[in-house]
This record gives sequence, structure tokens and C-alpha cells, in this order.
Amino acid sequence: MLAKVYVTLKKGVHDPQGEAVNRTLGTMGYKGVSDVRIGKYIEVKMSGDNQAEAEAKLDEMCEKLLANTVIESYRIEMSE
Amino acid sequence: MLAKVYVTLKKGVHDPQGEAVNRTLGTMGYKGVSDVRIGKYIEVKMSGDNQAEAEAKLDEMCEKLLANTVIESYRIEMSE
Repeated sequence: MLAKVYVTLKKGVHDPQGEAVNRTLGTMGYKGVSDVRIGKYIEVKMSGDNQAEAEAKLDEMCEKLLANTVIESYRIEMSE
Repeated sequence: MLAKVYVTLKKGVHDPQGEAVNRTLGTMGYKGVSDVRIGKYIEVKMSGDNQAEAEAKLDEMCEKLLANTVIESYRIEMSE
């Protein structure tokens, strides 16, 4: 089973990396980019057939390790 | 217009960050995780109405700045 986890900074949280990329795109001549936010994309391969159980486990992993829930939110997508 | 860019390490490219997370999940007691790969998830807000044009521009940005195409591949998703 493959799980995809998207970890993004919450709204209002300062994103210096995204701002740096935004500025750099500007200096490279790209017009029309108004905002860049950078997050993490995590692929987790898990064994087992029970999708609901795996998703619950993954939710716990996100809370405990994969995301810093003070400043980040996460979204889980399960696929085969 | 909002563009979502997923940057992932190519197959076979060593991912020390993913391995560290995988090991840590193991020591935390999570069984059944066989592989973890960590990539980037980038949201780019762009002005303009022409989606095809924006996507072409974004493709160029990925080649030049957002991804290291020697070791990374990227996927672009456009939304309103």
C-alpha cells in the first residue's frame, strides 16, 4: 500500500524558503508569480491490506513525527 | 491560478532523509513501513488566465530552479 502525505505550512506562517524562491523567480525574469509556498511530499510504503487501519496509523505518525502540527498541517492520500 | 508542483527523487537515487524517517518510525514501534521517500511540494500562485501558457512557464521554472533534473523528477498540476 502506498500512502502520500502532503505537509504544508499553515496559513500565516512565514515561509522564508518560499519567499526566496519567489524573489529568485522574479530576478530570473518570470513575471506574474505572486506567491510561493514550499512544503513536503512524503511517500510511505506500508504492508497490510487494511486501508483504514493503515491510514489511522499514518495519521498518528504525522502527529508524532512527520509534521510539526504547531505550524504545519498535513493531508493523507492512500493508494494501492 | 494555483499551480502545484511535486518534486521527487528519481528511482534509485539515495534518499538519506527518507531512510532516517523510516528508521525512526521503526524505533517508535511502527511495524510494516517498508520504504519512505521524501520530496518537495510547491504551491505557486500565478496571475494570468492562459493555463497552457502558465504551465509552460512553470515547466521552465522547474527545469531551471525548482527541481534538480539530474536526480529529481517533477509533476505539475494546475488548478484555478
